[in-house]
Amino acid sequence: MEITLDCIPCMLKQALEASRMVTNDIEQQEKIVEEALSILLAFKAYRNAPDLARGIQRIIKDITGTEDAYYDIKRRDLDAANKLYPFLQEFIKKQDGELYWALKTAATGNNIDAAIYQDIDVKRCVEQELDKEFSVCDLTLFKDKLKVASNILILGDNTGETVFDKILIESLPDIPVTYGVRSEPILNDATIQEAYDSGLGEVSRIVSTGCNAPGTILEECNKEFITLFHQADLIISKGQGNFEALSEQKGNLFFLLKAKCPMIANKLNVELNDYVFKYSGS
Amino acid sequence: MEITLDCIPCMLKQALEASRMVTNDIEQQEKIVEEALSILLAFKAYRNAPDLARGIQRIIKDITGTEDAYYDIKRRDLDAANKLYPFLQEFIKKQDGELYWALKTAATGNNIDAAIYQDIDVKRCVEQELDKEFSVCDLTLFKDKLKVASNILILGDNTGETVFDKILIESLPDIPVTYGVRSEPILNDATIQEAYDSGLGEVSRIVSTGCNAPGTILEECNKEFITLFHQADLIISKGQGNFEALSEQKGNLFFLLKAKCPMIANKLNVELNDYVFKYSGS
Repeated sequence: MEITLDCIPCMLKQALEASRMVTNDIEQQEKIVEEALSILLAFKAYRNAPDLARGIQRIIKDITGTEDAYYDIKRRDLDAANKLYPFLQEFIKKQDGELYWALKTAATGNNIDAAIYQDIDVKRCVEQELDKEFSVCDLTLFKDKLKVASNILILGDNTGETVFDKILIESLPDIPVTYGVRSEPILNDATIQEAYDSGLGEVSRIVSTGCNAPGTILEECNKEFITLFHQADLIISKGQGNFEALSEQKGNLFFLLKAKCPMIANKLNVELNDYVFKYSGS
Repeated sequence: MEITLDCIPCMLKQALEASRMVTNDIEQQEKIVEEALSILLAFKAYRNAPDLARGIQRIIKDITGTEDAYYDIKRRDLDAANKLYPFLQEFIKKQDGELYWALKTAATGNNIDAAIYQDIDVKRCVEQELDKEFSVCDLTLFKDKLKVASNILILGDNTGETVFDKILIESLPDIPVTYGVRSEPILNDATIQEAYDSGLGEVSRIVSTGCNAPGTILEECNKEFITLFHQADLIISKGQGNFEALSEQKGNLFFLLKAKCPMIANKLNVELNDYVFKYSGS
Protein backbone atom coordinates (compact mmCIF):
# COMPACT_ATOMS: atom_id res chain seq x y z
CA MET A 1 0.00 0.00 0.00
CA GLU A 2 1.38 3.40 -0.94
CA ILE A 3 2.15 6.13 1.59
CA THR A 4 -0.73 8.61 1.78
CA LEU A 5 -0.37 12.29 2.60
CA ASP A 6 -2.34 11.58 5.79
CA CYS A 7 0.51 9.33 6.96
CA ILE A 8 2.83 12.34 7.24
CA PRO A 9 1.27 14.37 10.10
CA CYS A 10 0.36 11.09 11.78
CA MET A 11 3.96 9.85 11.76
CA LEU A 12 5.20 13.21 12.98
CA LYS A 13 2.85 12.91 15.94
CA GLN A 14 4.10 9.38 16.55
CA ALA A 15 7.71 10.65 16.50
CA LEU A 16 6.87 13.30 19.10
CA GLU A 17 5.09 10.77 21.31
CA ALA A 18 8.01 8.34 21.08
CA SER A 19 10.51 11.11 21.83
CA ARG A 20 8.61 11.84 25.05
CA MET A 21 8.75 8.19 26.07
CA VAL A 22 12.55 8.19 26.04
CA THR A 23 13.55 11.68 27.13
CA ASN A 24 12.30 14.66 29.10
CA ASP A 25 14.95 16.84 27.48
CA ILE A 26 13.05 19.37 25.35
CA GLU A 27 16.10 20.04 23.18
CA GLN A 28 16.38 16.36 22.31
CA GLN A 29 12.64 16.22 21.61
CA GLU A 30 12.98 19.25 19.33
CA LYS A 31 15.89 17.65 17.52
CA ILE A 32 13.86 14.47 16.99
CA VAL A 33 10.94 16.46 15.56
CA GLU A 34 13.28 18.43 13.28
CA GLU A 35 14.97 15.27 11.99
CA ALA A 36 11.55 13.67 11.51
CA LEU A 37 10.46 16.65 9.41
CA SER A 38 13.55 16.22 7.22
CA ILE A 39 12.81 12.52 6.71
CA LEU A 40 9.14 13.23 5.95
CA LEU A 41 10.22 15.75 3.31
CA ALA A 42 11.76 12.80 1.47
CA PHE A 43 8.73 10.55 2.00
CA LYS A 44 8.61 9.56 -1.67
CA ALA A 45 11.92 7.76 -1.30
CA TYR A 46 10.29 5.24 1.04
CA ARG A 47 8.56 2.04 -0.10
CA ASN A 48 5.58 2.17 2.20
CA ALA A 49 4.44 3.41 5.62
CA PRO A 50 6.36 0.79 7.67
CA ASP A 51 9.55 1.74 5.79
CA LEU A 52 8.96 5.43 6.55
CA ALA A 53 8.01 4.75 10.17
CA ARG A 54 11.26 2.84 10.63
CA GLY A 55 13.21 5.80 9.24
CA ILE A 56 11.60 8.06 11.79
CA GLN A 57 12.03 5.69 14.73
CA ARG A 58 15.73 5.35 13.88
CA ILE A 59 16.14 9.05 14.66
CA ILE A 60 15.10 8.35 18.23
CA LYS A 61 17.73 5.65 18.53
CA ASP A 62 20.39 7.89 16.97
CA ILE A 63 19.61 11.00 19.05
CA THR A 64 18.87 9.45 22.44
CA GLY A 65 20.85 6.22 22.23
CA THR A 66 17.72 4.31 23.31
CA GLU A 67 17.49 1.02 21.42
CA ASP A 68 13.93 0.20 22.48
CA ALA A 69 11.80 3.30 23.06
CA TYR A 70 8.66 1.24 23.64
CA TYR A 71 10.23 -1.19 26.16
CA ASP A 72 8.07 -0.11 29.12
CA ILE A 73 4.92 0.06 27.00
CA LYS A 74 5.61 -3.44 25.68
CA ARG A 75 6.12 -4.89 29.19
CA ARG A 76 2.93 -3.20 30.38
CA ASP A 77 0.92 -4.56 27.45
CA LEU A 78 2.44 -8.01 27.79
CA ASP A 79 1.60 -8.18 31.49
CA ALA A 80 -1.97 -7.05 30.85
CA ALA A 81 -2.42 -9.54 28.01
CA ASN A 82 -0.93 -12.44 29.97
CA LYS A 83 -3.36 -11.71 32.80
CA LEU A 84 -6.24 -11.83 30.30
CA TYR A 85 -5.18 -15.21 28.89
CA PRO A 86 -7.41 -17.41 31.14
CA PHE A 87 -10.37 -15.11 30.45
CA LEU A 88 -9.76 -15.34 26.69
CA GLN A 89 -9.63 -19.14 26.92
CA GLU A 90 -12.98 -19.16 28.75
CA PHE A 91 -14.44 -16.77 26.18
CA ILE A 92 -13.55 -19.10 23.29
CA LYS A 93 -14.98 -22.15 25.08
CA LYS A 94 -18.34 -20.42 25.45
CA GLN A 95 -18.68 -19.50 21.77
CA ASP A 96 -20.52 -21.21 18.96
CA GLY A 97 -17.99 -21.40 16.13
CA GLU A 98 -14.62 -21.71 17.81
CA LEU A 99 -12.50 -20.79 14.79
CA TYR A 100 -14.46 -17.60 13.99
CA TRP A 101 -14.13 -16.36 17.55
CA ALA A 102 -10.50 -17.42 17.84
CA LEU A 103 -9.77 -15.33 14.75
CA LYS A 104 -11.85 -12.52 16.24
CA THR A 105 -9.88 -12.78 19.49
CA ALA A 106 -6.60 -12.51 17.60
CA ALA A 107 -7.93 -9.45 15.75
CA THR A 108 -9.12 -7.91 19.02
CA GLY A 109 -5.60 -8.29 20.38
CA ASN A 110 -4.63 -5.68 17.79
CA ASN A 111 -6.44 -3.25 20.09
CA ILE A 112 -4.82 -4.08 23.43
CA ASP A 113 -2.59 -0.98 23.54
CA ALA A 114 -5.56 1.33 22.95
CA ALA A 115 -7.68 -0.60 25.45
CA ILE A 116 -5.11 -0.19 28.19
CA TYR A 117 -4.68 3.45 27.40
CA GLN A 118 -8.38 4.26 27.32
CA ASP A 119 -9.74 2.28 30.18
CA ILE A 120 -8.55 1.13 33.57
CA ASP A 121 -10.94 -1.80 33.30
CA VAL A 122 -9.01 -3.50 30.49
CA LYS A 123 -10.97 -6.75 30.77
CA ARG A 124 -14.30 -5.03 30.26
CA CYS A 125 -12.93 -3.00 27.38
CA VAL A 126 -11.54 -6.13 25.69
CA GLU A 127 -14.85 -7.93 26.35
CA GLN A 128 -16.74 -5.19 24.50
CA GLU A 129 -14.34 -5.35 21.57
CA LEU A 130 -14.46 -9.16 21.46
CA ASP A 131 -18.24 -9.09 21.04
CA LYS A 132 -18.02 -6.99 17.86
CA GLU A 133 -18.21 -9.18 14.77
CA PHE A 134 -16.02 -8.96 11.64
CA SER A 135 -17.31 -6.62 8.95
CA VAL A 136 -15.42 -8.66 6.36
CA CYS A 137 -14.77 -12.32 7.07
CA ASP A 138 -13.51 -14.81 4.50
CA LEU A 139 -13.89 -17.69 6.93
CA THR A 140 -15.41 -20.23 4.51
CA LEU A 141 -12.49 -19.82 2.12
CA PHE A 142 -10.05 -20.02 5.01
CA LYS A 143 -11.65 -23.22 6.27
CA ASP A 144 -11.42 -24.77 2.81
CA LYS A 145 -7.73 -23.96 2.57
CA LEU A 146 -7.13 -25.08 6.15
CA LYS A 147 -8.50 -28.57 5.36
CA VAL A 148 -5.64 -29.21 2.95
CA ALA A 149 -2.94 -27.16 4.69
CA SER A 150 -0.03 -28.97 6.29
CA ASN A 151 1.49 -25.82 7.83
CA ILE A 152 0.60 -22.24 8.73
CA LEU A 153 2.67 -19.08 8.98
CA ILE A 154 1.47 -16.21 11.18
CA LEU A 155 3.04 -12.76 10.86
CA GLY A 156 2.96 -11.15 14.28
CA ASP A 157 2.35 -7.51 15.04
CA ASN A 158 2.15 -5.78 18.44
CA THR A 159 3.36 -6.99 21.78
CA GLY A 160 0.44 -8.16 23.92
CA GLU A 161 -1.54 -9.00 20.80
CA THR A 162 0.84 -11.98 20.73
CA VAL A 163 -1.02 -13.52 23.69
CA PHE A 164 -4.29 -13.25 21.76
CA ASP A 165 -2.56 -14.97 18.84
CA LYS A 166 -1.71 -17.90 21.13
CA ILE A 167 -5.47 -18.35 21.64
CA LEU A 168 -5.91 -18.51 17.85
CA ILE A 169 -3.13 -21.06 17.41
CA GLU A 170 -4.68 -23.26 20.13
CA SER A 171 -7.93 -23.27 18.13
CA LEU A 172 -6.28 -24.33 14.86
CA PRO A 173 -6.02 -27.98 13.79
CA ASP A 174 -2.89 -29.81 14.89
CA ILE A 175 -0.51 -28.71 12.10
CA PRO A 176 2.86 -26.95 12.49
CA VAL A 177 2.61 -23.20 13.02
CA THR A 178 5.47 -20.79 12.45
CA TYR A 179 5.24 -17.34 14.05
CA GLY A 180 7.30 -14.60 12.34
CA VAL A 181 8.36 -11.48 14.23
CA ARG A 182 10.45 -8.31 13.67
CA SER A 183 14.21 -8.75 13.77
CA GLU A 184 14.75 -5.77 16.10
CA PRO A 185 12.69 -3.56 18.47
CA ILE A 186 10.54 -1.13 16.47
CA LEU A 187 7.53 0.71 17.94
CA ASN A 188 5.56 -1.69 20.18
CA ASP A 189 6.00 -4.61 17.78
CA ALA A 190 6.90 -8.04 19.08
CA THR A 191 10.41 -9.41 18.60
CA ILE A 192 11.52 -12.96 19.42
CA GLN A 193 11.81 -12.01 23.09
CA GLU A 194 8.22 -10.80 23.44
CA ALA A 195 6.91 -13.72 21.38
CA TYR A 196 8.49 -16.14 23.86
CA ASP A 197 7.26 -14.09 26.82
CA SER A 198 3.72 -14.47 25.42
CA GLY A 199 3.99 -18.27 25.56
CA LEU A 200 4.06 -18.60 21.77
CA GLY A 201 7.06 -20.96 22.03
CA GLU A 202 4.69 -23.59 23.48
CA VAL A 203 2.42 -23.59 20.41
CA SER A 204 4.59 -22.51 17.48
CA ARG A 205 8.07 -22.18 16.10
CA ILE A 206 9.09 -18.54 16.56
CA VAL A 207 11.31 -17.05 13.84
CA SER A 208 12.63 -13.61 12.98
CA THR A 209 11.55 -12.37 9.55
CA GLY A 210 14.90 -10.64 9.27
CA CYS A 211 13.08 -7.37 8.66
CA ASN A 212 13.27 -4.60 11.27
CA ALA A 213 10.46 -2.42 9.88
CA PRO A 214 7.04 -2.34 11.62
CA GLY A 215 5.61 -4.40 8.74
CA THR A 216 6.90 -7.44 6.86
CA ILE A 217 8.66 -5.92 3.83
CA LEU A 218 9.32 -9.15 1.97
CA GLU A 219 12.29 -7.88 -0.08
CA GLU A 220 14.10 -7.14 3.18
CA CYS A 221 13.43 -10.44 4.90
CA ASN A 222 16.15 -13.06 5.29
CA LYS A 223 16.41 -15.94 2.81
CA GLU A 224 15.12 -18.52 5.28
CA PHE A 225 12.01 -16.46 5.95
CA ILE A 226 11.34 -15.72 2.28
CA THR A 227 11.49 -19.48 1.57
CA LEU A 228 9.13 -20.09 4.51
CA PHE A 229 6.74 -17.43 3.19
CA HIS A 230 6.59 -18.92 -0.29
CA GLN A 231 6.28 -22.49 0.94
CA ALA A 232 3.59 -21.78 3.54
CA ASP A 233 0.22 -23.43 2.77
CA LEU A 234 -1.56 -20.64 4.63
CA ILE A 235 -0.40 -17.26 5.93
CA ILE A 236 -2.22 -15.04 8.43
CA SER A 237 -0.89 -11.48 8.37
CA LYS A 238 -1.68 -9.62 11.58
CA GLY A 239 -2.23 -5.88 11.92
CA GLN A 240 -1.97 -2.73 9.88
CA GLY A 241 1.81 -2.61 9.40
CA ASN A 242 1.92 -6.04 7.80
CA PHE A 243 -1.08 -5.12 5.65
CA GLU A 244 0.62 -1.94 4.46
CA ALA A 245 3.73 -3.90 3.55
CA LEU A 246 1.93 -6.87 1.93
CA SER A 247 -1.32 -5.43 0.56
CA GLU A 248 -0.35 -6.14 -3.04
CA GLN A 249 0.82 -9.69 -2.29
CA LYS A 250 -1.39 -12.54 -3.51
CA GLY A 251 -1.53 -16.21 -2.59
CA ASN A 252 -2.71 -18.16 0.44
CA LEU A 253 -2.56 -14.99 2.48
CA PHE A 254 -5.27 -13.66 4.82
CA PHE A 255 -5.17 -10.25 6.50
CA LEU A 256 -6.44 -10.19 10.08
CA LEU A 257 -6.69 -6.75 11.65
CA LYS A 258 -8.65 -3.90 13.12
CA ALA A 259 -8.80 -0.95 10.70
CA LYS A 260 -7.66 1.71 13.17
CA CYS A 261 -6.52 4.17 10.50
CA PRO A 262 -8.95 5.92 8.08
CA MET A 263 -6.62 5.32 5.12
CA ILE A 264 -6.42 1.60 5.77
CA ALA A 265 -10.20 1.41 6.33
CA ASN A 266 -10.62 3.15 2.98
CA LYS A 267 -8.22 0.78 1.22
CA LEU A 268 -10.11 -2.19 2.69
CA ASN A 269 -13.46 -0.59 1.90
CA VAL A 270 -14.66 -0.84 5.50
CA GLU A 271 -15.55 1.64 8.24
CA LEU A 272 -12.95 2.97 10.67
CA ASN A 273 -12.46 0.53 13.59
CA ASP A 274 -14.02 -2.38 11.73
CA TYR A 275 -12.54 -5.82 12.23
CA VAL A 276 -11.41 -7.56 9.05
CA PHE A 277 -10.41 -11.09 8.08
CA LYS A 278 -9.80 -10.83 4.38
CA TYR A 279 -8.34 -13.04 1.71
CA SER A 280 -5.61 -11.34 -0.32
CA GLY A 281 -6.83 -12.80 -3.60
CA SER A 282 -5.09 -15.34 -5.78
CA MET B 1 2.21 31.83 24.14
CA GLU B 2 5.16 29.96 22.67
CA ILE B 3 4.83 27.39 19.91
CA THR B 4 4.76 23.87 21.35
CA LEU B 5 6.08 20.78 19.61
CA ASP B 6 2.48 19.54 19.52
CA CYS B 7 1.59 22.47 17.24
CA ILE B 8 3.79 21.03 14.49
CA PRO B 9 1.94 17.81 13.51
CA CYS B 10 -1.34 19.63 14.14
CA MET B 11 -0.48 22.42 11.69
CA LEU B 12 0.72 19.92 9.13
CA LYS B 13 -2.67 18.20 9.35
CA GLN B 14 -4.37 21.58 8.97
CA ALA B 15 -2.28 22.31 5.86
CA LEU B 16 -3.32 19.00 4.32
CA GLU B 17 -6.99 19.62 5.13
CA ALA B 18 -6.85 23.13 3.66
CA SER B 19 -5.07 21.86 0.54
CA ARG B 20 -7.95 19.45 -0.03
CA MET B 21 -10.47 22.28 0.27
CA VAL B 22 -8.94 24.14 -2.66
CA THR B 23 -7.68 21.45 -5.01
CA ASN B 24 -8.24 17.83 -5.99
CA ASP B 25 -4.86 17.78 -7.70
CA ILE B 26 -2.73 15.31 -5.71
CA GLU B 27 0.51 16.83 -7.01
CA GLN B 28 -0.52 20.26 -5.71
CA GLN B 29 -1.53 18.74 -2.39
CA GLU B 30 1.86 17.01 -2.17
CA LYS B 31 3.64 20.25 -2.96
CA ILE B 32 1.68 22.03 -0.22
CA VAL B 33 2.59 19.34 2.31
CA GLU B 34 6.26 19.47 1.27
CA GLU B 35 6.38 23.27 1.56
CA ALA B 36 4.61 23.06 4.91
CA LEU B 37 7.26 20.61 6.13
CA SER B 38 9.98 23.09 5.11
CA ILE B 39 8.28 25.91 6.99
CA LEU B 40 7.74 23.74 10.05
CA LEU B 41 11.45 22.90 10.04
CA ALA B 42 12.05 26.60 10.71
CA PHE B 43 9.34 26.84 13.38
CA LYS B 44 11.65 28.58 15.84
CA ALA B 45 11.81 31.61 13.54
CA TYR B 46 8.08 32.26 14.16
CA ARG B 47 6.72 34.37 17.02
CA ASN B 48 3.80 32.17 17.98
CA ALA B 49 1.31 29.67 16.58
CA PRO B 50 -0.79 32.23 14.62
CA ASP B 51 2.40 33.50 12.97
CA LEU B 52 3.39 29.95 12.00
CA ALA B 53 -0.15 29.08 10.85
CA ARG B 54 -0.13 32.13 8.57
CA GLY B 55 3.18 31.01 7.06
CA ILE B 56 1.65 27.65 6.24
CA GLN B 57 -1.61 29.03 4.86
CA ARG B 58 0.38 31.34 2.58
CA ILE B 59 1.74 28.27 0.81
CA ILE B 60 -1.79 27.37 -0.22
CA LYS B 61 -2.29 30.83 -1.71
CA ASP B 62 1.08 30.68 -3.47
CA ILE B 63 0.69 27.19 -4.91
CA THR B 64 -3.00 27.19 -5.84
CA GLY B 65 -3.63 30.89 -6.36
CA THR B 66 -6.64 30.64 -4.04
CA GLU B 67 -6.89 33.78 -1.90
CA ASP B 68 -9.54 32.44 0.47
CA ALA B 69 -9.32 28.67 0.94
CA TYR B 70 -12.06 28.69 3.60
CA TYR B 71 -14.55 30.79 1.62
CA ASP B 72 -17.19 28.04 1.31
CA ILE B 73 -16.73 26.93 4.91
CA LYS B 74 -17.14 30.53 6.09
CA ARG B 75 -20.36 31.04 4.08
CA ARG B 76 -21.75 27.75 5.42
CA ASP B 77 -20.93 28.68 9.02
CA LEU B 78 -22.27 32.20 8.59
CA ASP B 79 -25.58 30.94 7.17
CA ALA B 80 -25.94 28.43 10.00
CA ALA B 81 -25.12 31.03 12.64
CA ASN B 82 -27.48 33.65 11.16
CA LYS B 83 -30.28 31.07 11.24
CA LEU B 84 -29.55 30.45 14.92
CA TYR B 85 -29.68 34.14 15.83
CA PRO B 86 -33.39 34.29 16.88
CA PHE B 87 -32.93 31.12 18.92
CA LEU B 88 -29.87 32.63 20.66
CA GLN B 89 -31.84 35.78 21.47
CA GLU B 90 -34.60 33.66 23.02
CA PHE B 91 -32.03 31.66 24.97
CA ILE B 92 -30.59 34.81 26.56
CA LYS B 93 -34.04 36.15 27.47
CA LYS B 94 -34.81 32.97 29.41
CA GLN B 95 -31.63 33.06 31.52
CA ASP B 96 -31.05 34.31 34.98
CA GLY B 97 -27.92 36.47 34.70
CA GLU B 98 -28.02 37.91 31.20
CA LEU B 99 -24.37 39.00 31.04
CA TYR B 100 -23.00 35.62 32.17
CA TRP B 101 -25.03 33.79 29.53
CA ALA B 102 -24.32 36.37 26.85
CA LEU B 103 -20.60 35.82 27.47
CA LYS B 104 -21.23 32.08 27.48
CA THR B 105 -23.08 32.38 24.16
CA ALA B 106 -20.16 34.26 22.62
CA ALA B 107 -17.78 31.58 23.88
CA THR B 108 -20.04 28.83 22.51
CA GLY B 109 -19.86 30.50 19.12
CA ASN B 110 -16.21 29.52 19.14
CA ASN B 111 -17.53 26.00 18.55
CA ILE B 112 -19.88 26.58 15.63
CA ASP B 113 -17.55 25.07 13.00
CA ALA B 114 -17.15 21.87 15.01
CA ALA B 115 -20.89 21.76 15.75
CA ILE B 116 -21.77 21.93 12.08
CA TYR B 117 -19.19 19.33 11.22
CA GLN B 118 -20.26 16.84 13.89
CA ASP B 119 -24.00 17.09 13.84
CA ILE B 120 -26.71 17.73 11.31
CA ASP B 121 -28.87 19.05 14.13
CA VAL B 122 -26.74 22.17 14.69
CA LYS B 123 -29.32 23.81 16.96
CA ARG B 124 -29.41 20.88 19.34
CA CYS B 125 -25.63 20.65 19.36
CA VAL B 126 -25.30 24.39 20.11
CA GLU B 127 -28.01 24.07 22.79
CA GLN B 128 -26.00 21.37 24.57
CA GLU B 129 -22.84 23.47 24.41
CA LEU B 130 -24.67 26.61 25.60
CA ASP B 131 -25.81 24.80 28.75
CA LYS B 132 -22.23 24.03 29.82
CA GLU B 133 -20.99 26.60 32.32
CA PHE B 134 -17.58 28.31 32.34
CA SER B 135 -14.86 26.46 34.24
CA VAL B 136 -13.09 29.79 34.81
CA CYS B 137 -15.18 32.94 34.90
CA ASP B 138 -13.89 36.32 36.08
CA LEU B 139 -17.34 37.88 35.77
CA THR B 140 -17.30 39.89 39.02
CA LEU B 141 -14.08 41.62 38.01
CA PHE B 142 -15.45 42.20 34.51
CA LYS B 143 -18.65 43.75 35.91
CA ASP B 144 -16.60 46.07 38.13
CA LYS B 145 -14.55 47.26 35.20
CA LEU B 146 -17.62 47.52 33.00
CA LYS B 147 -19.26 49.97 35.46
CA VAL B 148 -16.56 52.54 34.80
CA ALA B 149 -15.85 51.71 31.14
CA SER B 150 -16.81 54.18 28.45
CA ASN B 151 -15.85 51.89 25.53
CA ILE B 152 -15.15 48.24 24.74
CA LEU B 153 -12.99 46.55 22.14
CA ILE B 154 -13.78 43.00 21.03
CA LEU B 155 -11.22 41.01 19.07
CA GLY B 156 -13.12 38.70 16.75
CA ASP B 157 -12.17 35.17 15.80
CA ASN B 158 -14.04 32.73 13.54
CA THR B 159 -16.74 33.44 11.01
CA GLY B 160 -20.14 32.39 12.37
CA GLU B 161 -18.91 32.98 15.92
CA THR B 162 -19.36 36.62 14.93
CA VAL B 163 -23.17 36.19 15.10
CA PHE B 164 -22.86 34.89 18.65
CA ASP B 165 -20.73 37.95 19.46
CA LYS B 166 -23.58 40.17 18.28
CA ILE B 167 -25.71 38.60 21.03
CA LEU B 168 -23.02 39.52 23.56
CA ILE B 169 -22.82 43.11 22.36
CA GLU B 170 -26.60 43.44 22.61
CA SER B 171 -26.37 42.39 26.26
CA LEU B 172 -23.70 44.96 27.14
CA PRO B 173 -24.53 48.40 28.54
CA ASP B 174 -25.03 51.17 26.01
CA ILE B 175 -21.39 52.16 25.44
CA PRO B 176 -19.48 52.24 22.12
CA VAL B 177 -18.16 48.86 21.00
CA THR B 178 -15.39 48.40 18.44
CA TYR B 179 -15.05 45.01 16.79
CA GLY B 180 -11.57 44.20 15.42
CA VAL B 181 -11.07 41.61 12.67
CA ARG B 182 -8.26 40.17 10.50
CA SER B 183 -7.05 42.35 7.66
CA GLU B 184 -7.18 39.50 5.10
CA PRO B 185 -8.76 36.06 4.74
CA ILE B 186 -6.89 33.52 6.88
CA LEU B 187 -8.33 30.12 7.86
CA ASN B 188 -12.03 30.54 8.77
CA ASP B 189 -11.42 33.82 10.61
CA ALA B 190 -13.74 36.75 10.10
CA THR B 191 -12.64 39.73 8.03
CA ILE B 192 -14.57 43.01 7.66
CA GLN B 193 -16.83 41.37 5.08
CA GLU B 194 -17.94 38.52 7.35
CA ALA B 195 -18.29 40.86 10.33
CA TYR B 196 -20.78 42.98 8.34
CA ASP B 197 -22.55 39.87 7.06
CA SER B 198 -23.08 38.84 10.69
CA GLY B 199 -24.93 42.08 11.43
CA LEU B 200 -22.12 43.41 13.63
CA GLY B 201 -22.27 46.75 11.81
CA GLU B 202 -25.62 47.40 13.54
CA VAL B 203 -24.15 47.11 17.04
CA SER B 204 -20.49 48.06 16.74
CA ARG B 205 -17.86 49.86 14.73
CA ILE B 206 -16.03 47.22 12.71
CA VAL B 207 -12.30 47.79 12.13
CA SER B 208 -9.44 45.82 10.66
CA THR B 209 -6.62 45.18 13.11
CA GLY B 210 -4.19 45.47 10.22
CA CYS B 211 -2.85 42.03 11.08
CA ASN B 212 -3.45 39.12 8.70
CA ALA B 213 -2.42 36.31 11.06
CA PRO B 214 -5.09 34.11 12.68
CA GLY B 215 -4.45 35.88 15.98
CA THR B 216 -3.96 39.55 16.91
CA ILE B 217 -0.17 39.98 16.86
CA LEU B 218 -0.05 43.48 18.29
CA GLU B 219 3.36 44.42 16.82
CA GLU B 220 1.91 43.81 13.36
CA CYS B 221 -1.31 45.76 13.78
CA ASN B 222 -1.77 49.15 12.16
CA LYS B 223 -1.17 52.35 14.16
CA GLU B 224 -4.87 53.19 14.47
CA PHE B 225 -5.63 49.78 15.91
CA ILE B 226 -2.67 49.82 18.34
CA THR B 227 -3.91 53.19 19.64
CA LEU B 228 -7.43 51.78 19.95
CA PHE B 229 -6.06 48.77 21.82
CA HIS B 230 -4.15 50.85 24.35
CA GLN B 231 -6.98 53.35 24.85
CA ALA B 232 -9.71 50.74 25.27
CA ASP B 233 -11.26 50.64 28.74
CA LEU B 234 -12.07 46.97 28.31
CA ILE B 235 -10.95 44.37 25.77
CA ILE B 236 -12.55 40.98 25.14
CA SER B 237 -10.24 38.69 23.17
CA LYS B 238 -12.14 35.88 21.46
CA GLY B 239 -10.80 32.42 20.68
CA GLN B 240 -7.57 30.49 20.77
CA GLY B 241 -5.61 32.36 18.09
CA ASN B 242 -6.01 35.70 19.84
CA PHE B 243 -5.09 34.05 23.14
CA GLU B 244 -1.93 32.57 21.63
CA ALA B 245 -0.95 35.97 20.28
CA LEU B 246 -1.86 37.98 23.40
CA SER B 247 -1.39 35.56 26.32
CA GLU B 248 1.45 37.61 27.82
CA GLN B 249 -0.41 40.92 27.44
CA LYS B 250 -1.73 42.54 30.65
CA GLY B 251 -4.30 45.26 31.24
CA ASN B 252 -8.06 45.49 30.91
CA LEU B 253 -8.03 42.37 28.79
CA PHE B 254 -10.29 39.31 29.19
CA PHE B 255 -9.89 36.08 27.23
CA LEU B 256 -13.14 34.44 26.15
CA LEU B 257 -12.78 31.05 24.52
CA LYS B 258 -13.31 27.33 24.43
CA ALA B 259 -10.05 25.45 25.11
CA LYS B 260 -10.22 23.14 22.10
CA CYS B 261 -6.48 22.37 22.05
CA PRO B 262 -4.73 20.39 24.84
CA MET B 263 -1.78 22.81 24.91
CA ILE B 264 -4.03 25.83 25.40
CA ALA B 265 -6.07 23.99 28.04
CA ASN B 266 -2.79 23.23 29.81
CA LYS B 267 -1.62 26.85 29.60
CA LEU B 268 -4.97 28.00 31.04
CA ASN B 269 -4.91 25.25 33.66
CA VAL B 270 -8.31 23.90 32.61
CA GLU B 271 -9.57 20.67 31.06
CA LEU B 272 -9.78 20.19 27.29
CA ASN B 273 -13.04 21.65 25.91
CA ASP B 274 -13.64 23.81 28.97
CA TYR B 275 -15.12 27.26 28.48
CA VAL B 276 -13.05 30.11 29.87
CA PHE B 277 -13.63 33.80 30.61
CA LYS B 278 -10.37 34.87 32.18
CA TYR B 279 -8.81 38.15 33.18
CA SER B 280 -5.30 38.62 31.76
CA GLY B 281 -3.97 40.11 34.98
CA SER B 282 -2.80 43.63 35.54
